[in-house]
Amino acid sequence: MLVNKIGEFGLIERIKKFVKTDSSVVKGIGDDCAVLGFSADKYLLFTCDMIVEGVDFTRRDAPYFIGRKAIASSISDIAACGGQPHCCLVSLGMPKKTSVETIDKIYKGIIFFSRKYNINIVGGDISRSEKIIIDVSMLGIVEKKYLALRNGAKRGDIVFVTGELGGSFLNKHHLEFIPRLKEARFLVKHFKINSMIDISDGLAQDLGHILSQSNAGAVIYEDLIPVSKQARGLDDALYMGEDFELLFTMSQDEANRLLKKNPYRFKPIGKIVVKEYGARLKDNNGNEKIMRPRGFTHF
Amino acid sequence: MLVNKIGEFGLIERIKKFVKTDSSVVKGIGDDCAVLGFSADKYLLFTCDMIVEGVDFTRRDAPYFIGRKAIASSISDIAACGGQPHCCLVSLGMPKKTSVETIDKIYKGIIFFSRKYNINIVGGDISRSEKIIIDVSMLGIVEKKYLALRNGAKRGDIVFVTGELGGSFLNKHHLEFIPRLKEARFLVKHFKINSMIDISDGLAQDLGHILSQSNAGAVIYEDLIPVSKQARGLDDALYMGEDFELLFTMSQDEANRLLKKNPYRFKPIGKIVVKEYGARLKDNNGNEKIMRPRGFTHF
Repeated sequence: MLVNKIGEFGLIERIKKFVKTDSSVVKGIGDDCAVLGFSADKYLLFTCDMIVEGVDFTRRDAPYFIGRKAIASSISDIAACGGQPHCCLVSLGMPKKTSVETIDKIYKGIIFFSRKYNINIVGGDISRSEKIIIDVSMLGIVEKKYLALRNGAKRGDIVFVTGELGGSFLNKHHLEFIPRLKEARFLVKHFKINSMIDISDGLAQDLGHILSQSNAGAVIYEDLIPVSKQARGLDDALYMGEDFELLFTMSQDEANRLLKKNPYRFKPIGKIVVKEYGARLKDNNGNEKIMRPRGFTHF
Repeated sequence: MLVNKIGEFGLIERIKKFVKTDSSVVKGIGDDCAVLGFSADKYLLFTCDMIVEGVDFTRRDAPYFIGRKAIASSISDIAACGGQPHCCLVSLGMPKKTSVETIDKIYKGIIFFSRKYNINIVGGDISRSEKIIIDVSMLGIVEKKYLALRNGAKRGDIVFVTGELGGSFLNKHHLEFIPRLKEARFLVKHFKINSMIDISDGLAQDLGHILSQSNAGAVIYEDLIPVSKQARGLDDALYMGEDFELLFTMSQDEANRLLKKNPYRFKPIGKIVVKEYGARLKDNNGNEKIMRPRGFTHF
């Protein structure tokens, strides 16, 4: 049986079954970051993101932005858990004939974000490979009271996104995006966030992770989804992925409090309901359709 | 200018110049692990190792052993710093047409060592790529008093290796090796280790790292080098790499104490001397030759 039969998430479910963790692991496989014991009031967050030439970028993309994307994807994971990034390792695979200037530019992109967010680059690995591959593994810190996971969405929660969705691959958004770290920290410091995830595989699929892990359903109002100008339509916003916006849920009371000021203009797009309802899209006329948790997948 | 002009270590030196770290980083780029503040008496160790099909293994190698090598390389880094591995992330790139059974076997290899050493597998990333690529990033813990780095070798230290060198690529040692974790923990708990490194690129090159970072020279006695039966000769032991034995140095007094019992049969192979002497090999007749820090390199 080939991996494309069971897909990326089928594979992750399969791996999860092999793996046991001890009590020092607060959250293992299956969230944006692993969550580990650290101190009386803080957790350590641990994540990695691998980007591959021909899948996540092409040789025609500017190396500076390839570097930015490599580190920004991991920062986005730390943000989705409510944390602050602290340090990272960079594993870099590249062909023999890569120019030193290309590597310099990739590093300039990595260093752009490492300086912006005070992230220490503390090591890595360099290997020969046929295509350029960058895997950034990152440690972050989160105050226990600020930790946000995928599994906390509650019936009645309002579902928000931090910005526009769709078309990320059609323009250069997937290379140039700024991870929503400032926004995530604002949220966890001032509001009770019940669940959060970053939208890397598309709204439908990433909302699907929240719902399955929270044992919940959701109704999403089509008209409320902030579709990017670059998107060709609603489907791009639902299924294309690589938006790197955050999706989060909070109680109606917290949502009311947020919407009074809402300095970052987060968009409410729907509501958490009972699991049996599934995930549905509702249009202006009240028509509903089922929103399957599909989106970008590697296989 | 292409990367193969400046090589892997030229590239690392170049990257080091771009990178600044803050005071929470005890040791950044340039050792087997990064060393980070953790608690009053412990440091956190952070490392990653990327292995690539066609470089570190081939498609003909047993997937189980590919998985073992992937995690064992990172465990070896933690061991070289005197620590105990705690948890890891596994980034896995593979072609669409990979069979699920292959991935299962790779994971069985990873899980073999994760169970043997109580290492939690807490997450990872899965991506499509043309060749199989595995990057294991690992966290370990080391008691501050036990930390071993590359930069502490002192004049008069005895240089030891934990086992036989050479020929690792000619048999399957590079896939089947057991990282020297038990040996390293024995050493740091019972002796004062001045410097330590794992031999992944060959004795000459890895000793070279100890010497350049410790501002020291060394004399190595040819006859004392434990050359593996699989090696074609001394040069394989000096330059081939992938032995995953540890090289360490300790004072003459500590060495005498170790050699009294020496339960793991560590081999003394030479002595640390002044930097000006460089690194030299001495044969039975007292003839010396310079041992250049060359060995396995990716470019």
